[in-house]
Amino acid sequence: MQRQKLLINNERLKHELEIFASYGKTENNGVTRLSLSPEDISVRNHFISCCEEIGMDIKVDDMGTIYATLEGLSEKPPIVIGSHLDTVKKGGRFDGVLGVVAGLEIVRTIVENQLTPEIPITIVNFTNEEGARFEPSMMASGVLSGKFDKVEMIKSKDEEGISFAEALHKSGFEGDIENRLNNATAFLELHIEQGPVLESESLSIGVVDCVLGMACYEIEVNGESDHAGTTPMSMRKDALFATTHLISFIREKIGAIDKEVVFTIGRMNVLPNIHTVIPNKVVLSFEARHKDPKIIQKVEEIILSLPVHVTEGCEVSIRKLWDRETVLFDQKMCDLLEGSTKSLGYKYKKMVSGAGHDAQFLASFVPTAMLFVPSINGKSHCEEELTSWEDCAKGVNVLLEAVLELNSK
Amino acid sequence: MQRQKLLINNERLKHELEIFASYGKTENNGVTRLSLSPEDISVRNHFISCCEEIGMDIKVDDMGTIYATLEGLSEKPPIVIGSHLDTVKKGGRFDGVLGVVAGLEIVRTIVENQLTPEIPITIVNFTNEEGARFEPSMMASGVLSGKFDKVEMIKSKDEEGISFAEALHKSGFEGDIENRLNNATAFLELHIEQGPVLESESLSIGVVDCVLGMACYEIEVNGESDHAGTTPMSMRKDALFATTHLISFIREKIGAIDKEVVFTIGRMNVLPNIHTVIPNKVVLSFEARHKDPKIIQKVEEIILSLPVHVTEGCEVSIRKLWDRETVLFDQKMCDLLEGSTKSLGYKYKKMVSGAGHDAQFLASFVPTAMLFVPSINGKSHCEEELTSWEDCAKGVNVLLEAVLELNSK
Repeated sequence: MQRQKLLINNERLKHELEIFASYGKTENNGVTRLSLSPEDISVRNHFISCCEEIGMDIKVDDMGTIYATLEGLSEKPPIVIGSHLDTVKKGGRFDGVLGVVAGLEIVRTIVENQLTPEIPITIVNFTNEEGARFEPSMMASGVLSGKFDKVEMIKSKDEEGISFAEALHKSGFEGDIENRLNNATAFLELHIEQGPVLESESLSIGVVDCVLGMACYEIEVNGESDHAGTTPMSMRKDALFATTHLISFIREKIGAIDKEVVFTIGRMNVLPNIHTVIPNKVVLSFEARHKDPKIIQKVEEIILSLPVHVTEGCEVSIRKLWDRETVLFDQKMCDLLEGSTKSLGYKYKKMVSGAGHDAQFLASFVPTAMLFVPSINGKSHCEEELTSWEDCAKGVNVLLEAVLELNSK
Repeated sequence: MQRQKLLINNERLKHELEIFASYGKTENNGVTRLSLSPEDISVRNHFISCCEEIGMDIKVDDMGTIYATLEGLSEKPPIVIGSHLDTVKKGGRFDGVLGVVAGLEIVRTIVENQLTPEIPITIVNFTNEEGARFEPSMMASGVLSGKFDKVEMIKSKDEEGISFAEALHKSGFEGDIENRLNNATAFLELHIEQGPVLESESLSIGVVDCVLGMACYEIEVNGESDHAGTTPMSMRKDALFATTHLISFIREKIGAIDKEVVFTIGRMNVLPNIHTVIPNKVVLSFEARHKDPKIIQKVEEIILSLPVHVTEGCEVSIRKLWDRETVLFDQKMCDLLEGSTKSLGYKYKKMVSGAGHDAQFLASFVPTAMLFVPSINGKSHCEEELTSWEDCAKGVNVLLEAVLELNSK
């Protein structure tokens, strides 16, 4: 394919994103498209007809992941572009779907310019990335990469007791294990940032060089549930007050390690949760993320060695739930995306992904990188999720440029 | 009645407390006897037959409160002894019932000694003190004292939608408004402490001179629920972290006012309560109790003027739920109980009640005081609730001595 400057059709991209958003549209302009739900099945069928219309070949693997391929002049492994079409309940119109529609717009642009790429282009839609219907998230890419055990995964049940295996079978998207992606020239995933950084710095593009490692704990603080009116302060073992002391201590210590570390107590339950009874138990989640495993290790040391004065006479038990190591993306692919961004003159920064994405699993066997576009107010997984049409188009143009660049080598 | 030294029959008291505890006995030696439940109705019938057996006259008022009266030589208003026979779910064997059985043992002791008191003695069982089936607590004594509106109270429904009015009617204990107590020489309530103070100081008796005033608030902290992985610490509005800061501030400031103040955050709910999402809302209860209204006022000033740095960019809204003023008991009655305790040589202290009791309502129209006996480990409202038989007997002996003293005047 001849190297020439191509740009996508911004209006067509916007129009197609709006069509995709109509599948599972919610009252407040969001999307509910749980994996393998009727809405997900409909959008998958729409995606396939769009791809077939421009001459792409469709394959589906044993986890329901769809691969649409535009043949290349060579037999080289494909350049894979994609993400996921499922959403959380009352999610947004951009998370996941942008990465898939990006592939469609890129192939449409190439095809309408009557070009045939040297390297085949595959658009992928990974099944059940959100994990909102069937836990865990990134299920299909996890199985594809060998990180998750398929036998265990397909037993996963939704709230109504329907297993992933059943839902996949009924959906008509139970494909062949032979169709799994096993080799690729590149995997490039365009995604919304889901955070406030790009917007706050007035940038359009983030070139993502890693997915942050993290550690996740459950902390249980056990005190005594005495009467709120009759127990002097000095004779209490108040699990909630001990917990707030513990949280203040953690914030101070972890905050001092490194300003890039992010840590969150998202879940906290107080028992017995009666206003006249001193709490005897608090159970909370704790998670921390950072690129550098040494920083995560320091965080874990703080959590695992809380000094006695912090716990105020309560018993504290700490249980590690899980962790994941930082996934560094392919340096050449990051350079490629950065070069493409620069060549288009877009404002960008190199950044990390604090959230997990299918790309982190693909990275284990394919040269992988990711691009972010700004999330207005940093919002995602909600109906307010928003990215400007202009930034969406910029992200897709960077990807198109990268595809053309790979083809020109 | 001739003034003579009388002591109760400790074994009979213990035996009777054990019989009363068999009505609604739980697996772990506790009691579930919700107001007007079959268990409560059975124990009421047992109480009435005990009273009738020793020649007492039974009356029931329009709220189901039972009055058993031993006639006196005079027509003076009665000395009233009592408390309540209802319990919370999986409550203990002492809370409430001790004050009623105390009356029974006192009258039995007087009767077996073939004495007739100058002043009539009435044993009272107040309906629905716990408020565990029908809110609020101390319902019948509240109506009796005019603090609560009967019309509103009897509409109160239990978890199954049965109203107090219906339950009272079906129970057979719907008596006559004419039977309400309207005058008394004294109301003396013996109760377990429900706190750890007496036990920790190795004392058997607490002479209670007041029920603490209190103020109760609901505090709502509103932040933003962003993604735990993608939102830098400096760009968060974490409602939980703001709440822990706020609690630390409150603890420091209130702790500095007065060491006797007791304050509790018993209820706290974190939303959306998902481990990967920064909490956007925390709702918590706050209550503080102290004898001195000026101290409560200082506490309220702290709560109502939280400085901005404490709230970390979150919106805090504060709503007063209710308050109650300190109820001071009758000084002569307190002196009477203290004198009786001293004359028996029991170790005691003067103290306050942090918990609410029927006595606080009776105090508005009858010379009232309370006695506490120790709660082992400070426990109450649970199956572990325990007071030694010896301390129970000491408490009843003090009451008996006080009754005799009142009769000798």
